[in-house]
Amino acid sequence: MTSTPHRLQPSRRSDVPPFEVMDVLDRVAVLRAAGRDIISLCAGEPSGGAPSAVSRAAAAVHASGQPLTYTSALGICPLREALAGHYRRWYGLDVDPARVAITTGSSGGFLLAFLAAFDAGDRVALARPGYPAYRNILAALGCEVVEIDCGPDVRFQPTPELLEAAHRQAPLAGLIVASPANPTGTMVDRAELTAISQWCAASGVRLVSDEIYHGVTYPEPGAPDPRGVCAWELDDSAIVVSSFSKYWGMTGWRLGWLLLPEDLVRPVDALAGNVALCPPAPAQYAAVEAFTDESYAECDEAVEEFARTRRLLLDHAPSLGWGTAAPADGAFYYYADLGGQLDRWPSSAAYASDLLDREGVALTPGADFDDRAGTRSVRLSFAAGSAAVGEAIERISRFHDQG
Amino acid sequence: MTSTPHRLQPSRRSDVPPFEVMDVLDRVAVLRAAGRDIISLCAGEPSGGAPSAVSRAAAAVHASGQPLTYTSALGICPLREALAGHYRRWYGLDVDPARVAITTGSSGGFLLAFLAAFDAGDRVALARPGYPAYRNILAALGCEVVEIDCGPDVRFQPTPELLEAAHRQAPLAGLIVASPANPTGTMVDRAELTAISQWCAASGVRLVSDEIYHGVTYPEPGAPDPRGVCAWELDDSAIVVSSFSKYWGMTGWRLGWLLLPEDLVRPVDALAGNVALCPPAPAQYAAVEAFTDESYAECDEAVEEFARTRRLLLDHAPSLGWGTAAPADGAFYYYADLGGQLDRWPSSAAYASDLLDREGVALTPGADFDDRAGTRSVRLSFAAGSAAVGEAIERISRFHDQG
Repeated sequence: MTSTPHRLQPSRRSDVPPFEVMDVLDRVAVLRAAGRDIISLCAGEPSGGAPSAVSRAAAAVHASGQPLTYTSALGICPLREALAGHYRRWYGLDVDPARVAITTGSSGGFLLAFLAAFDAGDRVALARPGYPAYRNILAALGCEVVEIDCGPDVRFQPTPELLEAAHRQAPLAGLIVASPANPTGTMVDRAELTAISQWCAASGVRLVSDEIYHGVTYPEPGAPDPRGVCAWELDDSAIVVSSFSKYWGMTGWRLGWLLLPEDLVRPVDALAGNVALCPPAPAQYAAVEAFTDESYAECDEAVEEFARTRRLLLDHAPSLGWGTAAPADGAFYYYADLGGQLDRWPSSAAYASDLLDREGVALTPGADFDDRAGTRSVRLSFAAGSAAVGEAIERISRFHDQG
Repeated sequence: MTSTPHRLQPSRRSDVPPFEVMDVLDRVAVLRAAGRDIISLCAGEPSGGAPSAVSRAAAAVHASGQPLTYTSALGICPLREALAGHYRRWYGLDVDPARVAITTGSSGGFLLAFLAAFDAGDRVALARPGYPAYRNILAALGCEVVEIDCGPDVRFQPTPELLEAAHRQAPLAGLIVASPANPTGTMVDRAELTAISQWCAASGVRLVSDEIYHGVTYPEPGAPDPRGVCAWELDDSAIVVSSFSKYWGMTGWRLGWLLLPEDLVRPVDALAGNVALCPPAPAQYAAVEAFTDESYAECDEAVEEFARTRRLLLDHAPSLGWGTAAPADGAFYYYADLGGQLDRWPSSAAYASDLLDREGVALTPGADFDDRAGTRSVRLSFAAGSAAVGEAIERISRFHDQG
């Protein structure tokens, strides 16, 4: 043995920037352990749980004692067929079940989509502010993350003009668009998504459409596309990413899906068999029950409660004492610039920390979504419901009055 | 828009070599659909299912209607603590629960381990023959896969001498050792694993120890280390990968774990939060019941049935008409050179295809595990039990007689 000892160390790519919200959540745990009454508006998840028929089906699957062995890497056929039915129901789309891939949450879907569509070194664009896992997964896979600053003037969404500018610097291989978006909740309408989709097709850029908040939307009565516009209504060379986590309230189940362009079905199948083997089997069997009239009705009820909470928040916006907020067309996030409060606190992280300690309200600092302008913003998740949010609004007002 | 249209295409890294067993399994489906009685000995999974207390707990979790929201990225504390107890029970090891990371199957564990420990371009060694997903995941992540030919002379396991030779060509960053191994079932004993572990420490090579078949072992009465030797008994700078899939029979649940070196806890936590969010929550709550005396007893009974089937196979080995087989110290695989049969069939794939068509017995061609010597071998999974394997042996004899 001629080698000299080396110190083992973590990979460079595992140096993922920490989320500021983790400090907030750690502090929430400490304060709660000390008996403080804390309202946490950090979590991006509904609290109501799965549709009751899905829970019943899951209980029955386990009670039957049937062995839950591996499924096909792309998931069980009945669920892939049920999802094809979902696309007919919501969008009038005719989707081949063979092009539906069931995944381990949308996280598992993003991983497979990025691996199948992009090589190391490929440039992939996304909006800043945006969901931080996009950039962290892409970076871990060696892709170059191209963050496009999307401010209030473009409703926090990329436009063909912004994309063209980035593409001219060096060609893009991909683009991620989220509608409704996290943290802003803004949606791109049919005309905007069409323009983006056509720009991608003309430019040879793969569109990845994050539609996990579809259905968690607040359209005016009679508005077109009330659930959101599916990228496949425009062009089926896009990858659509979605999940049972939000509309169906099944975050912890880890079940999502992809709609795959024809040329990516075999690559995703092969990658999934190696990287994941298969999505969780019990969740797959149960999720077939997510597509009954009864289940849709339960989910729509949960969305109505989000809508009431959103209304409460928008009605009280002036008294909140913050600056401009994003429109919150969908999802359950209120993303606001802190405005004049930043005269008194140096950053949204400092503000959030102080608010938590003094009034017991936990928010997510905006820097987790945007390391530049985000230091001025916070994200308030109103998934917690109107009672919690109403009480939080009172506490925030008191916080400002005493500040 | 000045760009010219490009044709979108899959990434280069998604060009995963197809498994020969997929053709076998497709043919199994066709033959079964046509009414043929097929014995499939391809699957690497027990058919008995989870311990009954785990299934009951899962049914109760779902029946309670409690919302199953995200857990911590590294899993729920009670399960991490229960696993620490498991290491005390089986190995007399004192493991800090904070260094146990629950993962989405061992697949999710390998992905996180490789991302956290290795960068693109890093050379990672593994035995040939071996589990193909190792090399396919590593390749997808941009690592250089260094396959080390490990033949019957070294019981299909790497030795410090073989490792040193590979390390001299260009430094290795990592080594994967599986004991019991797939497809050969061979194990490294305490002395061998100590030598490998010490070579890794001296050479600055990160050891990844795949222990998912621990407990599925066939020791002589009174033999030392009957469940297998845990790499952490020797050095806790190794990453240990394990799973509920094999000993506990919970393949489809997608639940596994890692034991993490101190320096990789934070990186894996950060990566997991982005890449996976968390492991499946219902499976985590239920799996806490996997560590009762009753559950261990049920699992040990399943292992006893594997042992009976293995005995049957070894007793009939001479009449099988194949060449040398690997020792099958553990796991439920019988990996054999086809010997004289290769005078009549050009490869194990051709043999397997013909055997399936004529006698309805499905085996996995060895090339899936070893693209060189593996063309001479097949893997027979005896997880299907003694009735199926006994019948398969008769059919194989008839196949040879008529060939």
